[in-house]
Amino acid sequence: MKIGIIGIGTIGRGVLELLNKEKENIEKRIGETIEISWICDLNENINNIENYNFTKDYKKVLEDSSVETIIELIGGNSIAFEIAKETLKNKKNLITANKYLLATKGKEIFEIAKENKVKIFFEGAIAGGTPIVSSIYEGIFSGGIKQIRGILNGTSNYILSKMEEGHSFKDALTIAQKEGYAELDSTFDIKGIDTAHKISLLSYLIWDEFIDFEKIVVKGIDHITDKDIEIAKSSGKRYKLIGEASKENELIKIVVKPVLIDKNDPLYNVNDAYNGIESYGHYLEKTFFCGKGAGALPTATSIIGDLYKIRNSNAWY
Amino acid sequence: MKIGIIGIGTIGRGVLELLNKEKENIEKRIGETIEISWICDLNENINNIENYNFTKDYKKVLEDSSVETIIELIGGNSIAFEIAKETLKNKKNLITANKYLLATKGKEIFEIAKENKVKIFFEGAIAGGTPIVSSIYEGIFSGGIKQIRGILNGTSNYILSKMEEGHSFKDALTIAQKEGYAELDSTFDIKGIDTAHKISLLSYLIWDEFIDFEKIVVKGIDHITDKDIEIAKSSGKRYKLIGEASKENELIKIVVKPVLIDKNDPLYNVNDAYNGIESYGHYLEKTFFCGKGAGALPTATSIIGDLYKIRNSNAWY
Repeated sequence: MKIGIIGIGTIGRGVLELLNKEKENIEKRIGETIEISWICDLNENINNIENYNFTKDYKKVLEDSSVETIIELIGGNSIAFEIAKETLKNKKNLITANKYLLATKGKEIFEIAKENKVKIFFEGAIAGGTPIVSSIYEGIFSGGIKQIRGILNGTSNYILSKMEEGHSFKDALTIAQKEGYAELDSTFDIKGIDTAHKISLLSYLIWDEFIDFEKIVVKGIDHITDKDIEIAKSSGKRYKLIGEASKENELIKIVVKPVLIDKNDPLYNVNDAYNGIESYGHYLEKTFFCGKGAGALPTATSIIGDLYKIRNSNAWY
Repeated sequence: MKIGIIGIGTIGRGVLELLNKEKENIEKRIGETIEISWICDLNENINNIENYNFTKDYKKVLEDSSVETIIELIGGNSIAFEIAKETLKNKKNLITANKYLLATKGKEIFEIAKENKVKIFFEGAIAGGTPIVSSIYEGIFSGGIKQIRGILNGTSNYILSKMEEGHSFKDALTIAQKEGYAELDSTFDIKGIDTAHKISLLSYLIWDEFIDFEKIVVKGIDHITDKDIEIAKSSGKRYKLIGEASKENELIKIVVKPVLIDKNDPLYNVNDAYNGIESYGHYLEKTFFCGKGAGALPTATSIIGDLYKIRNSNAWY
């Protein structure tokens, strides 16, 4: 399969690294060779890309009729939206880790994919290396899922963990940025918006309905003080930024906010850059998934899983 | 899709119930109607099966050329092995929750499936309602998995939990049987053999190699005394029956034995009939899955997920 990767940031480099290091295993599992026809980024000063066919112009990639699948990793919902639409209209499959794009423009994007009979997979968009997306959509969909809740943003979880160790919010954010877990602009992370994107996408996967973003109550961790953390700690609890979606009487409700989590809750031990998701199903009771929610290689692992799906699974519509 | 269900025990009845109650959702997700052409069991005195086409003779089901997929739920590796082989040779897909069969005869069965170009899926064989099988095979296969360990047998975990509450081993087993978590003959559960089947099957899914069953060190929970439990408890630990597989220097090692688990280990809080599996990957670090490991409806949920795969995924070979 010939692929093009648009966006060679942290995750993009992770995909290149994993495709390189695990080439044999990956191709054996997928059942064919994977050829990277193009890599594309606005920044041309990227290390170690001499062996790839590089371009600054994404149109070149989309116009190459031999490319079957585009991996979009630039983020945001403006240029990425254009790229997604053109990819699908050019009859190419799309793999993306872009939750912002899918949560806000997903309805339109899935429609275009359907019209053009191509596939979209996005395991990397939620909980990095934890295969929650396909587990929900293909695995436990018949379990009568009523509620799903989780820690879905690695950056804020990392910050909260550092604050518990005695760092101020500001210092914790700086450490998160240094460690590569937080972007320079981490507004979406700490204000809960990234979590809202992910939980609404999960809600769509479960109940097949997109919720109007304005109807989602979103509160981030930016108002949590050292004192709050201290009080929580002294009562044996932890603050976690929780995204929760539930459906009752045909009504879907989504809330994002910091919640005091008790020691007996499986989310209590989901610390640092880990994500944890618990679903509750009428027939299934509790199912819990936990894994790295951020980081280049864990997310790359999920993107490679999507390459498997491109070749081996039907489209999700 | 026309299906036949062979074996109408606890799980089989769960599948009938779920297909009935969630008919609309299931058919919407799979993309077509599911018609139960036959149900088959040696026992004809089963309640509430008047609406199904019942037979005691499995050959009738396998000879019906309109049946596309067989769900085998009788267990064991003698008649079930015959049924599996004939199913595949008759060009029908196979869904099974039978870990004993796959761990001991998997190599041969997968070979026959390949020859006949039909599919086998078995999400229900490991950890009931937790989609660990496809998560490993399709999701995180490129994560450089080096080790996987977990609580894989609901019955022994339930017994250990009851023993912690003060019951003797014998009483705990009786309660497990009354609650429907343990079979009347629970030798395989308490002696660790069922766990060995599951962990060796997981090992196959990860490293594509079947390990000679005699090379697996297996110790069950049948020698754990009330006193052992008490000592563990007083030091803040819990005994859990752990199956562990690891690969180092091209060598796969599988061990099943009771292990003292510390409070900080995610497996510590996997109690009663729940299962928990932690994998460790070079690129992924830790991934943890937890959910109901036994019970009719959780396992049925996974079997319905396999029906999705029969229609929407390529075969796993």
